[in-house]
Amino acid sequence: MGEPAGIGGELALMAWQRRHQQAVPPFFVLDDPARLQRLAAALGWAVPVAAISAPAEAVELFERALPVLPLAQTVTAAPGRPEPANAAAVRASIEQAVALARSGAAAAVVTNPIHKGVLYQAGFPFPGHTEYLAALTGVAEADTVMMLAGAGLRVVPVTIHVSLKEAIARLSGSAIQRTIRVTHAALRDRFGLPRPRIAVAGLNPHAGEDGGMGREELELITPALDQLRAEGLDVTGPWPADTLFHAVARQTYDVAVCMYHDQALIPLKTLAFDSGVNLTLGLPIIRTSPDHGTAFALAGTGQATPHSLLAALNLAHQLSA
Amino acid sequence: MGEPAGIGGELALMAWQRRHQQAVPPFFVLDDPARLQRLAAALGWAVPVAAISAPAEAVELFERALPVLPLAQTVTAAPGRPEPANAAAVRASIEQAVALARSGAAAAVVTNPIHKGVLYQAGFPFPGHTEYLAALTGVAEADTVMMLAGAGLRVVPVTIHVSLKEAIARLSGSAIQRTIRVTHAALRDRFGLPRPRIAVAGLNPHAGEDGGMGREELELITPALDQLRAEGLDVTGPWPADTLFHAVARQTYDVAVCMYHDQALIPLKTLAFDSGVNLTLGLPIIRTSPDHGTAFALAGTGQATPHSLLAALNLAHQLSA
Repeated sequence: MGEPAGIGGELALMAWQRRHQQAVPPFFVLDDPARLQRLAAALGWAVPVAAISAPAEAVELFERALPVLPLAQTVTAAPGRPEPANAAAVRASIEQAVALARSGAAAAVVTNPIHKGVLYQAGFPFPGHTEYLAALTGVAEADTVMMLAGAGLRVVPVTIHVSLKEAIARLSGSAIQRTIRVTHAALRDRFGLPRPRIAVAGLNPHAGEDGGMGREELELITPALDQLRAEGLDVTGPWPADTLFHAVARQTYDVAVCMYHDQALIPLKTLAFDSGVNLTLGLPIIRTSPDHGTAFALAGTGQATPHSLLAALNLAHQLSA
Repeated sequence: MGEPAGIGGELALMAWQRRHQQAVPPFFVLDDPARLQRLAAALGWAVPVAAISAPAEAVELFERALPVLPLAQTVTAAPGRPEPANAAAVRASIEQAVALARSGAAAAVVTNPIHKGVLYQAGFPFPGHTEYLAALTGVAEADTVMMLAGAGLRVVPVTIHVSLKEAIARLSGSAIQRTIRVTHAALRDRFGLPRPRIAVAGLNPHAGEDGGMGREELELITPALDQLRAEGLDVTGPWPADTLFHAVARQTYDVAVCMYHDQALIPLKTLAFDSGVNLTLGLPIIRTSPDHGTAFALAGTGQATPHSLLAALNLAHQLSA
């Protein structure tokens, strides 16, 4: 479900409407069927919403209706106006999705965006989705990794939502190695790449030019990569980040590991602005999500584009196949 | 000429060979005609090289030969092996090009890449091309700005060849304002944009998210931009850098001013890897250059691509027209 005041509900309706022309894999929504039916009616969309009692019903039903596994909660949401009263439903949707994926009843979890502010008001103790999913599956948050994928490019940042100054301060050989190990295992086990090619960006311009413009490459990154190479991983770099993402360079690796948020997200969003997918690696379940937020300003208008959700559904399907 | 052991000479020969199919504007080379003739012969290319005695001869001659205004020096260079003995010729080529552009005899200067190491050995006292050009034209280096252009995108970094840590330390309201003022004047006076639209990137992920991930946006960037806006400049931002460079966003500005090297060069080189052009703004002459180095490993093979030099020639022509 995600935040019911955001665009998640209408994107789910749109994705179902495009099930034929875009070959959307069968999915079901953990939500309040009545609120999705009202949303479809308000948008003037002919989407039959059908409550199911078990995930298995969704596959056969998907052809003729949007399957919804009802939450215990009733959800009433005005577009653009998040309510702490819905926090319990938002959490229940995530918790049940994870439980169904862990039991094997669902192949994967695709999360619509949540609004952290309103969850915090309701006592939600996690910084975001990823930390919550780690806690629900008993994984240390430090052992999860965010990957973004789109336009044939996969990127993984070593640090994420911290200031650039803090990202530099936090950079360490062990953080780099941890990120690469989790990424390597996920590409091997989930993406079916027996020997994933991992390209690693430097931190500084021109990857530091042998220490002339910063020493992190010499002191942190190269030693960390050398050790991984000695263990047999196909790791190259540190490469100058500015020449790592053009079309020819992208053919030379399966994933680019980046030192900070924008180094990874600038090329990804430049190339795949509305079709990027966010994946959490390191969990015992497959989890993808669209690479955008709740977009309250668009909610209820039907103007949001479902490309990223469709890409997230397709990638979840591909990884679970 | 640039560094004669690099790819500059063969790129000039290639550019001349493509003068018809790529509508290359007439240019002449400040070089040793005999060494260019030897280079063409070694590559098996039928390029007649013609010495000229004044720039004006080049326009009419360009159709049937590559015009070369001879340097006083004889230049002998083995591909890939730069020699300090050629440093005087490298410098003379730049100095005469600047003098001809200042006098109006040449419309613009396009510089092939130089090799700094070999120039330093010969006592060259400037960190690079740009500082040398500033000194030759009597401009303070601090009043010049590097712009990269390609694929419809123009980017300007506030800091360039320093470590990322140092780039953050050097960021100041005055450096940001100086960069934007020089950029604004150049877009207005050289590019013919009466009111250039200048988008400015933040430093931190999500442009700091109101101070939650770094305070430079609140403390340095926004106040600097507010003042420029009060002076009437069309300046927007600070914007999250990751969503500033996709196709739709690029339509909303004429230049993106970035806080550090890779923030500017990652999107530019991702989109325009071999067709980017480097421009120096703030000089009294028009100066462009290809966005690559001497490429010693490719020199003499004829395998380098002239896209960037062709783009540099075309942009120089456009700006001087």
